Amino acid sequence: MTFAAMEFELRIRAVQGRMAQNDLAALLLTQDADIRYLTGYLTRFWESPTRPWFLVVPAAGLPIAVIPSIGAALMAQTVVRDIRTWGAPDYGDDGVSLLIDTLKEVAQGGKIGTPFGIESHLRMPLADWTRLCAELSIGSDHAVLRHARMIKTPAEVDSIRAACQIAGRAFQRVPEIARAGTPLAEVFRRFQMLCLEEGADWVPYLAGGAGPTGYEDVISPASEVPLQSGDIMMLDTGVIRNGYFSDFDRNFAVGVPSKAAEAAYETLLKAMQAGECALKAGNTAADVFHAMDQLCTGGKGGQSAGRLGHGLGLQLTEGLSFIADDHTVLEPGMVITLEPGVSVSGGAGLMVHEDDYVVTADGWERLSPMPPEKLVRLEP
Amino acid sequence: MTFAAMEFELRIRAVQGRMAQNDLAALLLTQDADIRYLTGYLTRFWESPTRPWFLVVPAAGLPIAVIPSIGAALMAQTVVRDIRTWGAPDYGDDGVSLLIDTLKEVAQGGKIGTPFGIESHLRMPLADWTRLCAELSIGSDHAVLRHARMIKTPAEVDSIRAACQIAGRAFQRVPEIARAGTPLAEVFRRFQMLCLEEGADWVPYLAGGAGPTGYEDVISPASEVPLQSGDIMMLDTGVIRNGYFSDFDRNFAVGVPSKAAEAAYETLLKAMQAGECALKAGNTAADVFHAMDQLCTGGKGGQSAGRLGHGLGLQLTEGLSFIADDHTVLEPGMVITLEPGVSVSGGAGLMVHEDDYVVTADGWERLSPMPPEKLVRLEP
Repeated sequence: MTFAAMEFELRIRAVQGRMAQNDLAALLLTQDADIRYLTGYLTRFWESPTRPWFLVVPAAGLPIAVIPSIGAALMAQTVVRDIRTWGAPDYGDDGVSLLIDTLKEVAQGGKIGTPFGIESHLRMPLADWTRLCAELSIGSDHAVLRHARMIKTPAEVDSIRAACQIAGRAFQRVPEIARAGTPLAEVFRRFQMLCLEEGADWVPYLAGGAGPTGYEDVISPASEVPLQSGDIMMLDTGVIRNGYFSDFDRNFAVGVPSKAAEAAYETLLKAMQAGECALKAGNTAADVFHAMDQLCTGGKGGQSAGRLGHGLGLQLTEGLSFIADDHTVLEPGMVITLEPGVSVSGGAGLMVHEDDYVVTADGWERLSPMPPEKLVRLEP
Repeated sequence: MTFAAMEFELRIRAVQGRMAQNDLAALLLTQDADIRYLTGYLTRFWESPTRPWFLVVPAAGLPIAVIPSIGAALMAQTVVRDIRTWGAPDYGDDGVSLLIDTLKEVAQGGKIGTPFGIESHLRMPLADWTRLCAELSIGSDHAVLRHARMIKTPAEVDSIRAACQIAGRAFQRVPEIARAGTPLAEVFRRFQMLCLEEGADWVPYLAGGAGPTGYEDVISPASEVPLQSGDIMMLDTGVIRNGYFSDFDRNFAVGVPSKAAEAAYETLLKAMQAGECALKAGNTAADVFHAMDQLCTGGKGGQSAGRLGHGLGLQLTEGLSFIADDHTVLEPGMVITLEPGVSVSGGAGLMVHEDDYVVTADGWERLSPMPPEKLVRLEP
């Protein structure tokens, strides 16, 4: 279990409070992050798509796990006491009857909700969902899980801070592993090794790129192309510590950067600072977006600029988005990234900077280390 | 792109052949592995749950991508030529209208299918799925993707073989990083570093355990408990190379193992050999299960033993399961794991062994290295 039992009992009661406001008698959860949030059930076995996993949250009391027997021993180490199992995979009935019985018993004819909105997926086969819906009426959870997860507890912030410090130490060591001539794929491998050596439990996310005017996109895997003198290289990583993510990037210059790249980096840091000024409880996500977008595009950005940051925690991205349409009011305990991006040399390339923060009662606390004032130079 | 364009064109035509047999005018795909299988679109950005991604496969011709604009540059490097984008996240319409228009255009009133069965999940919010279903009738894809993916092409087998060799080299180096006194969490970190150093692109999966009579389960993350003399330690990893998984484990003894552990390991190797004897085209998955289960439980296993192996490829586990109820007929090109498990000391613990194979025209080829005949001993 990742935290003390009390932490989960408080989370469960808070979610049950939101359930009551929405008249929900039972909540059905099927996804890793949601189930882990309420129980502490932490395993990388979600990587296997074969078996479904269900958590049923009643209006009061502890949740009930309806899971494959292969997970029973591990689930027994969490706060969950009522663990109902079947021998999965079962081609005739892969836990569906057991789930239907449990939902009926818990809901007693009351409303059943499951996550329906943005960032939620149904982690069970549609055929089984169809069987479920033939017996029971299941509607939206009114985003009770989404909203509960947006406000982090101090224990959650500690875990994210630890992940950020690990990634920060790895970024500081990039000059050890990257110079002109190093294939980007080799940089990616070595950077993940640094993250692990600095204390990451695992490294679920790494993307990046390199080129003389920045990079073409921010989600690409590495190519075997060697770094060249004059390139700007960006690494964007999400490392896990105690089940929680960091998510920030750093830019590096291979030798001497172009004036355009230096200017773009300066603009990114100014945009980040503008975001920091707007980052306070009571402001909206859109306020923060506009503050940064003024620097990034002169205020023309809107939707086409993409988002300029987002929430994070149990997942690499979760919760609010810094876009013009997100009117979420910032609250203490929200953990977010500021992620301004600018085009370089009239659109020939792109540069992006990202850092992690928690909103506090009187402003914010930086969770990732301060970025360098100038692009760090790698050996040309 | 992970392979030559011809590889994807052949895959697309093969899937379209299966679509024709099932009278499907269009296929809707929402998941990483399915979309990557037909296009080569490889990114770790799926780690972010925020944005949905859609691929629409017509009855003939190339698939159409309906994706967030953030992925357009990377998708343009694949075989896909028709790329329709929107600025995601869009809280009003997160690609749903664009997807509905595309599906209507492609299906022309004909049947639309999407994966419905085991191992498939709907990677889009249920609210958006409901909107889609209000405008269009979408049914099962009759597992056309699942069945197509079960038979690997030579290029796929090469990638899995490469992943297995990398993991094999990392396992050989475990004595460098693990001995009595090393916390298991430290072994996990160092082992992932070894996998990367030996050539893994990333390490999505690692589980394991340690104890004097084996371990309690096979899906746990690492604890901080130090290894003790007499422990049996198991590491089970899935590493990625070129987008494809290995999935096998190795057991180690810290110092001198107990007689019970030595005997269990011997039984596991015999069960593996029994599985190998049954592993041939024309036999069923159940035949292989029973051959191994005879050694593991004396033939009493059935469902309660859990499965004794499974398919793998783009995902850690995919395709068939070695259980009594799986009557899939083995065919050349199927890549699978044999994964016998036995209880140790009358159920006090568990030991599991796993290796990877491809079924060939005249038997099988081992993809993971030969396991040691005796438990490898770590420094006590």
